[in-house]
Amino acid sequence: MKSIKVAATHPYQAWIGTGLLDRVGEMTAALRSPCPVALVMDETVAELYGELVASSFAKAGFRPHMYRFPPGEGSKSFELLSHLLEFLAQKGLGRGDLVAALGGGVTGDLAGFAASVYQRGTAYIQIPTTLLAAVDSSVGGKTAVNLPSGKNLAGTFWQPEAVFCDCATFATLPRQELASGAAECVKYGMLGVSGLLETLTRDGLAASWMDIVPPCVAYKAEIVRVDERENGLRRMLNLGHTLGHGVEKLSGFTVRHGEGVAVGMAILTRAAERMGFCEAGTFRFLQRALDALGLPSTSPFSAEALADASLGDKKRQGDHITLILPRNVGSCGLYPISITELLPIIRLGMEEGS
Amino acid sequence: MKSIKVAATHPYQAWIGTGLLDRVGEMTAALRSPCPVALVMDETVAELYGELVASSFAKAGFRPHMYRFPPGEGSKSFELLSHLLEFLAQKGLGRGDLVAALGGGVTGDLAGFAASVYQRGTAYIQIPTTLLAAVDSSVGGKTAVNLPSGKNLAGTFWQPEAVFCDCATFATLPRQELASGAAECVKYGMLGVSGLLETLTRDGLAASWMDIVPPCVAYKAEIVRVDERENGLRRMLNLGHTLGHGVEKLSGFTVRHGEGVAVGMAILTRAAERMGFCEAGTFRFLQRALDALGLPSTSPFSAEALADASLGDKKRQGDHITLILPRNVGSCGLYPISITELLPIIRLGMEEGS
Repeated sequence: MKSIKVAATHPYQAWIGTGLLDRVGEMTAALRSPCPVALVMDETVAELYGELVASSFAKAGFRPHMYRFPPGEGSKSFELLSHLLEFLAQKGLGRGDLVAALGGGVTGDLAGFAASVYQRGTAYIQIPTTLLAAVDSSVGGKTAVNLPSGKNLAGTFWQPEAVFCDCATFATLPRQELASGAAECVKYGMLGVSGLLETLTRDGLAASWMDIVPPCVAYKAEIVRVDERENGLRRMLNLGHTLGHGVEKLSGFTVRHGEGVAVGMAILTRAAERMGFCEAGTFRFLQRALDALGLPSTSPFSAEALADASLGDKKRQGDHITLILPRNVGSCGLYPISITELLPIIRLGMEEGS
Repeated sequence: MKSIKVAATHPYQAWIGTGLLDRVGEMTAALRSPCPVALVMDETVAELYGELVASSFAKAGFRPHMYRFPPGEGSKSFELLSHLLEFLAQKGLGRGDLVAALGGGVTGDLAGFAASVYQRGTAYIQIPTTLLAAVDSSVGGKTAVNLPSGKNLAGTFWQPEAVFCDCATFATLPRQELASGAAECVKYGMLGVSGLLETLTRDGLAASWMDIVPPCVAYKAEIVRVDERENGLRRMLNLGHTLGHGVEKLSGFTVRHGEGVAVGMAILTRAAERMGFCEAGTFRFLQRALDALGLPSTSPFSAEALADASLGDKKRQGDHITLILPRNVGSCGLYPISITELLPIIRLGMEEGS
């Protein structure tokens, strides 16, 4: 088992291991006295791990209340948020009690948001069961739900008390879901975790996640320490995300988050290389890793459609957006551009040929 | 015009004057560059002051978008919160733009909550137009909406950029509404603002609010500085509120907030005096001030009903609650009691005779 300290305003540990799920109760008891705990999960995860985690809490003296909701992005809504909050109230939870998010990114974002506003702030823990949640959403305290106008438009910064990541849970993920998480690992390789792209290119989805997850979480933890509220440096973590959201949106959300990010990184890296921002060969290096993981580096959408869909993104501020562009494998930079510059950059990144 | 510094984690000034409303734009421009601003208000306030404040913003270069909602506590709901958030998104507001709450406590709580979660935190200003909001909810950064299970069960701590309080607006308040705000002023007198009860007893609702509001706000600001997130000292501000909420609830919310607080303070002060916690004569002194302001010191409800309704309150934690009891006019203390002790205390406070 490995442990990584997240030195946010409210510091905590992320624990990464295999077979952690049935120790969650005991490990939580090491942090705080037993209390009522609302165990929030979607129906798929409840079926797989609900009883195991609830009984782990019960054995350690906690009083678990299970809250199940339908799986999928549609559950990241205000309707479900208010329903969950009313559940917490009806179970009599107080400010001093606990919420536990067991599942993927939707669960963590929703349960974290609920915890952050219930009685103006209640403690919670993150128990990610997907690779994507493990390396991305479970660490750093971003919570959110979607609005009709766009994804993640309402939310809070609210750090968990602990993150318990059991890599054994990734074995039950569909192949495409695992690949989607692996795209975020590729992102950390592009940003600065050394050796990661090489390992992922060599091992593909058979990689040893117990070895891959900790350096990714450590990299994110360092960025969160420096810029918890995303005023500057933390935007780096959005590498590939502006275009990625555009791809997701154009596909009617049939393209997964990580697949969109993969396409976004590929387009921007090729464009950056052609503009001379980025070392020659970087795109090819990236593409090999994406191929090995079964991730796309192109999309069927036109540059115009992609630019339009991407600019609907919340990252738009006035008439400028900030793009993250690679300089080489392991180093990226923030570039503010005018929104009119996005289309030619996407065109450049989509052209075939070297 | 007077200015009071609120030294919260995010420090700001509360400005108190008369005829401030048409200077709000210019005063906001002194704090930040002109930007889009969502002006949130109920229909009653929109009718009275909406155009005045919107044009003040426009003259200073801001681009105001007016958001109106039906007046009343019923609007402090998740439905209205999500509707307001979607309005902000549709108007294209970004994290760097501004929300302005123009009105009473409902407006401030709702708009502040929306600002605190829109794009994970957007700046807002408070422009209270009721005495209650001026001395209580507009300062200190508590935001909330109600859940079916209870009042203010979901919310955040999110400090405004500034508070602009125009005491001239109190002239348009119904008499009962002004008295409800005055009850919170009485509370500050009981907690520690010296001379306040004497002034209110002498002048009643004809008091010079320009002189009364600043010391109340300064008192609250000092408590917020010490205990922003209500882990201890800030609970003092709940003097009279546990029983007050009980009275409000039993009346089906026909009794106003301040009236409930007045009854709560009266019952607890008489009980504290009879238990020997509190100096003799304190209750009579308090009662004279409440009488002068046309505020009640008794309710038609039984001690049993009142205890039951009050314990439904979110302040319940396990089997204990914390009562705030006066020691004399100008000094109170926090007393944790078992929930079974509340009924006999209420009985003692409701008995006639000295």
